Amino acid sequence: MPPEVGLVQEEIRRRNLGTLLRHVHLDGSLSRAALAERMGLNRSTIMALTAELTAAGLVREEPPADTGRAGRPSLVVRPESNRLYVLAFDVAVDRLVAARVALGGIMLEREEAVRPRAGADLDRVVDVLARFGRRLYHSAPPGSVCVGIGASYCGMIRPGDGVVRFGPDMGWVDQAFGPELSRRLGLGLPVPVGNEAHLGALAEQQRGAGIGLGNLIYLHGDVGVGGGIIVGGKLLDGEGGYGCELGHMVVNPYNGRPCGCGSHGCLEAEVGERALLDAAGRPAEEWGRDAIRAVVDDADRGDPAAQEALRRIGDWLGIGVANLINLFNPAMVIFGGMLRDMYPGAAAQVRARIAANVLPVARERVRLRTSALGDDATLVGAAELGFRRLLADPLGVLARTHP
Amino acid sequence: MPPEVGLVQEEIRRRNLGTLLRHVHLDGSLSRAALAERMGLNRSTIMALTAELTAAGLVREEPPADTGRAGRPSLVVRPESNRLYVLAFDVAVDRLVAARVALGGIMLEREEAVRPRAGADLDRVVDVLARFGRRLYHSAPPGSVCVGIGASYCGMIRPGDGVVRFGPDMGWVDQAFGPELSRRLGLGLPVPVGNEAHLGALAEQQRGAGIGLGNLIYLHGDVGVGGGIIVGGKLLDGEGGYGCELGHMVVNPYNGRPCGCGSHGCLEAEVGERALLDAAGRPAEEWGRDAIRAVVDDADRGDPAAQEALRRIGDWLGIGVANLINLFNPAMVIFGGMLRDMYPGAAAQVRARIAANVLPVARERVRLRTSALGDDATLVGAAELGFRRLLADPLGVLARTHP
Repeated sequence: MPPEVGLVQEEIRRRNLGTLLRHVHLDGSLSRAALAERMGLNRSTIMALTAELTAAGLVREEPPADTGRAGRPSLVVRPESNRLYVLAFDVAVDRLVAARVALGGIMLEREEAVRPRAGADLDRVVDVLARFGRRLYHSAPPGSVCVGIGASYCGMIRPGDGVVRFGPDMGWVDQAFGPELSRRLGLGLPVPVGNEAHLGALAEQQRGAGIGLGNLIYLHGDVGVGGGIIVGGKLLDGEGGYGCELGHMVVNPYNGRPCGCGSHGCLEAEVGERALLDAAGRPAEEWGRDAIRAVVDDADRGDPAAQEALRRIGDWLGIGVANLINLFNPAMVIFGGMLRDMYPGAAAQVRARIAANVLPVARERVRLRTSALGDDATLVGAAELGFRRLLADPLGVLARTHP
Repeated sequence: MPPEVGLVQEEIRRRNLGTLLRHVHLDGSLSRAALAERMGLNRSTIMALTAELTAAGLVREEPPADTGRAGRPSLVVRPESNRLYVLAFDVAVDRLVAARVALGGIMLEREEAVRPRAGADLDRVVDVLARFGRRLYHSAPPGSVCVGIGASYCGMIRPGDGVVRFGPDMGWVDQAFGPELSRRLGLGLPVPVGNEAHLGALAEQQRGAGIGLGNLIYLHGDVGVGGGIIVGGKLLDGEGGYGCELGHMVVNPYNGRPCGCGSHGCLEAEVGERALLDAAGRPAEEWGRDAIRAVVDDADRGDPAAQEALRRIGDWLGIGVANLINLFNPAMVIFGGMLRDMYPGAAAQVRARIAANVLPVARERVRLRTSALGDDATLVGAAELGFRRLLADPLGVLARTHP
């Protein structure tokens, strides 16, 4: 059954309010005329919807910046950024981050801690994040309203309930991360959790390199390689929510490096952190973001071993990316996380593999980019996850939320 | 903008009529109660919709088969299969097929010709198909109405206009196959064209092994290997409609067999027709469906070389399938075309690769199946393509169509 069948008037109004608020939230400011055009509604309907959102303190209307033209300028609608915010959390392989993010996507304040690479138990991680969260909550100006929470995690998440199915880096299996963080924050709000690469993909599509694209692939490098794949405007989830595992695509079946998953020759085994450091001849004691950046810097300074290491990584990365382009015919492939640093030195090999292996019709139009949001892609994605409830039913959520 | 915004009453009614007809078309017969439940509408609305479709001659209502229970049985709604039909065409690597297919999906009549493997130009192919089509059209009983046409083609199709971008097997580049077939048939109906593996995937999802599944992968083997991937209930098309090219996923980057695309080690180079025949030591003069089946039969009879050949194919096939499961987390993988014959002898290797390479959460629930529609999967898909217009707007299409 198409979703629109049997929709009642009230439901249509609620969705229209959410859609209008989403446009304003993502664009920052939009004229009523632009909103009318995007939503396919007439201007009097837009005026009525805007009036409701204004009365609820979600948006405000302002004269636009001087247009230089004569006549009365049409008002623009902006998000009420001084009042409404979400808490966003990011559990990455090397750090714990929390931020207060305003409606409109403005990062207001943040707290960050380095995380040791070795395992950390649920209790310790939630402890740090809850402390950050409470501090951010209490530092918000009087009258501010926290309308949601979202978290990004570097592992596999069970859809719907914020449970970490598998966190390879921390050794977590079936840990109730979202529910536990929600309980410790004590704000009466749920904590939806998303995989970092999934959220990074959505963030790049909403606010980054791929704004508005319906088909894009985001590769997130850290210890391994995660993926977020957007198909027809939606994140690919598959039957159980466990799709997008492009890091475990086998690219080197017979001489492959061992992978953390127990197999050999997976993309992440061939292009992950350790693969690059080994290729560059770095000792096993060096690891992490700084070690990767050191190789990249050496290559930039002309060091042949570092350059060759990036080229080797680029060849495997190119095979993986070519396969993905043949499968998904995306408009863009985005390299994020540590792959953002590694990509420039590997780009020639990636492009050569695409030229050799991708069918011309899919190759013609694809663009390759590094993440526009940089290290914050996953945190921005977590914030957007936090805004989801509000944007689905702005007035309803606001009525149920207390400052 | 969500699609439901601003939908007017008339549009809702049209969609409801199409949705009801689609359910009856795919299920064969459904009670009013079942229709009400599936569509989320009350029974009086279902009664009104059914009455409209009955008056237009699209469905009829009948008493159900004896239920053995007392009381007046509820009527069932069936498609009016004796009156409405589509013409379906299939241009496969080894044959040309045409069929008259009734509403409800019943194959009424068919015409088939063996096609020589060597190139055939547009003119010759359309000539044969148009002759078949006209013969089927004229043999329909008086009062029959042809409501649409659909065609399947073994190559890349430009979405929307039925132009073959690339037909590797026939050497076609940018040939206006759909428009030309439409012109020669002279029925005043367009001929939408789909790639054979895409249509096979949809057919298996609508009437075959994967009925109702929202996430499935269909692999179609002939000379090469094509794919149809259904994500969230819809065929993956990507930015230009050229996704799903799983046959050109590189699985053997350094010792790979040459592929028709110009690259090496593509999945279709490693598991296609020639790979199997070479592995089984068959001479270059043997090819096609019969040659494949001879190897499979030999393996069934215990011939070690034939068995080993299928196992070798199975290993490469397993790598490809494992990659696809990691990427798509599908509920089912379906092997069609010649892979349907090859799969049973290769299944152990495929399963072993899945066990080694797929992450447990995605591996747990995936089912592997051979095509339930067999050699007709692509033809059934072409017929469904032909029904698409009618199911989008039953009364409108009927009003514009003359018997």
